[in-house]
Amino acid sequence: MAAAADAFRALDEASLVEYIKATPALRAQLGEQLEGLAIKEVGDGNLNFVYIVAGPAGSLVIKQAIPYVRCIGTSWPLTKERAYFESLALKEHGSLCPNHVPQVYHFDRPMSLIAMRYLEPPHIILRKGLIAGIEYPLLAQHMSDYLARTLFFTSLLYHATLEHRHAVAEFCGNAELCRLTEQVVFSDPYMVSQYNRWTSPHLDHDVEAVRHDDILKIEVAELKSMFCERAQALIHGDLHTGSVMVTIDSTQVIDPEFAFYGPMGFDIGAFLGNLILAFFSQDGHADKDNDRTVYKQWILRTIEETWNLFHHNFVSLWNENFDGHGEAYLVDIYNKTELQLLVQKKYMTDLFHDALGFGAAKMIRRIVGVAHVEDFESISDETKRALCERRALDCAKTILKERRKFETISQVISVIQEISAP
Amino acid sequence: MAAAADAFRALDEASLVEYIKATPALRAQLGEQLEGLAIKEVGDGNLNFVYIVAGPAGSLVIKQAIPYVRCIGTSWPLTKERAYFESLALKEHGSLCPNHVPQVYHFDRPMSLIAMRYLEPPHIILRKGLIAGIEYPLLAQHMSDYLARTLFFTSLLYHATLEHRHAVAEFCGNAELCRLTEQVVFSDPYMVSQYNRWTSPHLDHDVEAVRHDDILKIEVAELKSMFCERAQALIHGDLHTGSVMVTIDSTQVIDPEFAFYGPMGFDIGAFLGNLILAFFSQDGHADKDNDRTVYKQWILRTIEETWNLFHHNFVSLWNENFDGHGEAYLVDIYNKTELQLLVQKKYMTDLFHDALGFGAAKMIRRIVGVAHVEDFESISDETKRALCERRALDCAKTILKERRKFETISQVISVIQEISAP
Repeated sequence: MAAAADAFRALDEASLVEYIKATPALRAQLGEQLEGLAIKEVGDGNLNFVYIVAGPAGSLVIKQAIPYVRCIGTSWPLTKERAYFESLALKEHGSLCPNHVPQVYHFDRPMSLIAMRYLEPPHIILRKGLIAGIEYPLLAQHMSDYLARTLFFTSLLYHATLEHRHAVAEFCGNAELCRLTEQVVFSDPYMVSQYNRWTSPHLDHDVEAVRHDDILKIEVAELKSMFCERAQALIHGDLHTGSVMVTIDSTQVIDPEFAFYGPMGFDIGAFLGNLILAFFSQDGHADKDNDRTVYKQWILRTIEETWNLFHHNFVSLWNENFDGHGEAYLVDIYNKTELQLLVQKKYMTDLFHDALGFGAAKMIRRIVGVAHVEDFESISDETKRALCERRALDCAKTILKERRKFETISQVISVIQEISAP
Repeated sequence: MAAAADAFRALDEASLVEYIKATPALRAQLGEQLEGLAIKEVGDGNLNFVYIVAGPAGSLVIKQAIPYVRCIGTSWPLTKERAYFESLALKEHGSLCPNHVPQVYHFDRPMSLIAMRYLEPPHIILRKGLIAGIEYPLLAQHMSDYLARTLFFTSLLYHATLEHRHAVAEFCGNAELCRLTEQVVFSDPYMVSQYNRWTSPHLDHDVEAVRHDDILKIEVAELKSMFCERAQALIHGDLHTGSVMVTIDSTQVIDPEFAFYGPMGFDIGAFLGNLILAFFSQDGHADKDNDRTVYKQWILRTIEETWNLFHHNFVSLWNENFDGHGEAYLVDIYNKTELQLLVQKKYMTDLFHDALGFGAAKMIRRIVGVAHVEDFESISDETKRALCERRALDCAKTILKERRKFETISQVISVIQEISAP
């Protein structure tokens, strides 16, 4: 393959068929039966084109990055090299947690094109399931497994420092995607920006209050610096409920194009924060057949279980590998059970506070920043939507500013409940 | 230049002359007068060969890295690529602070060879001046200028995040040198290691106490993680008093082969910690002509002034560049003087505590680890030396464990004085 940057061409349904026919790995995945392929473009994200390719003897998904933000257009350029980092992260996280990451069949760097497993029906985007009020009894177990394995095994609790710095250097190349996060999560929501939007005029005062909340802005600066400086583990980088596909018994994490070595709490917080957003949106989806009371309790249980199971799984992996090649805590130094327990308690407490901070920041930006969530957007009654959003915003501000006072996730749940039913 | 790894050959005085004659940049620096060159090998560090080359019309220093630790031998291999990172850091820090970094004339990557300014007499290594009891009235001013400029301008207070991550990635290549620091500063002193040594039997119990101090080891783990994970600024990485050459009116920082993007506090702490070691060694150098009382006061003043002037200089640079392209604190968000003051206070307080922690860790490793300092080693009376070392060790342990309680450097000075005159 004569890889060259200018070998890129954006595909459409027709040219995709020709591409598949010319690519042995894809032909094989489709069982060499290339007549009558059904191709459907389904990209509903903000950035890329996504095609489902179904043939009589196999199926796959093709994802192609284009050199700008799809939902905005060529006026917001964005490197298509993000597909390279997405493919790296899919492969790395997939090898660590194959049950919850779709298999990659093929990657074409010049074309910024990834072919991967088609997540067949009834897989749907988790966010849509949450809006529909569907319970996923294994979600907490699956996500805590994914988070614990991907974060532990790419951290210095498992890595030697040489391999760690080597991997960190590679993912520094994804700086443009990191920069997008920095802008839309940590900057724009706290200043006047042309990209910000909110339910107006209902939330006008709330948005202004965010911009004038000095304590909040000092805390956000600390989180932003941690995001920019701290290479703790290979994180997904965009782990909201739109990056997870689910059925009742399957959980698959997709779209890690924002992956880089960053703070673990950013992934954990993204997932928990988006569950909290889903919780606060439920009142807007209640109707006379279903007041969502039971479902809200399920979401809260899922938040609680996700953290608690993550904590358990992560510490278990740590214990299993305490005498391994991870260089953060050498067993010759941290050589007593009592000391190991102290060290783990400190590490997990700090991680908990990081996760709460990042999760809250991700909530705030979904209410006052450029990219909103369907959980709220699909509430057509603006007054009702604004009420849900305001409660979520108040909750996020409290969690972000007070995060160091929380010792357990159940204390966080209590705050959510208080703000939900004042 | 056909750069190839195997183009390396270790030079000696004779082959160095041939190398100089074949290298136009060096010929020019010597004024094209290559007859009667005086060449002297003066490497007294642990790692490299250093030659002073003096001719009738010019002079220079040649530093060549060899692929192992010089003071230990081929049994401890160490990449000679360290010379590449040293040359990068000399050029970057030199452009930011030309008054205190020697000029680089020539770099040859395959040969791991740097040619740079010869720091002519009466320049001596600062550590030797401190042992001799010489006051340097401009030292605090010069070092605070060097620290403020090199750290500020390579941090996200000045860098945009894209350029920052690009630079971070490059210096990740210096991982082997970082790993050496991790081992000798953060690991070996806290475990049984064949490399550790100490004044024995005098300090046997003290060394054992370090290995059993759980609180100390938990704090050291936090510092080690910060060293491994946090890319805050381009730091020198080995800024002890043996990496500084001085006269009464000149201060030159040399030997940044450990340079990488790490926590700023590591550089500040290394310098302050080594001054504190110098302070505690003075009683061992006192004689009937000079009890060193006045000199000890000068060292304490220098510690105090270095931090206070650094604080002043760093904040001044920040104020001058608040509306620049640094992305940590956008002026559109941190848009009021009051808020800027709050943000700076928090940043500088955290940095102060980091510096105290790292400085204390650097003190401890010089007493119980592999590499000791001449300040103590040159005290021939072992009982006297052990007493000095024990006080320094106790001081370091206190500072490391209690660092977050200190608000000013004068409070640190008080602790040093208390431990010095119990």
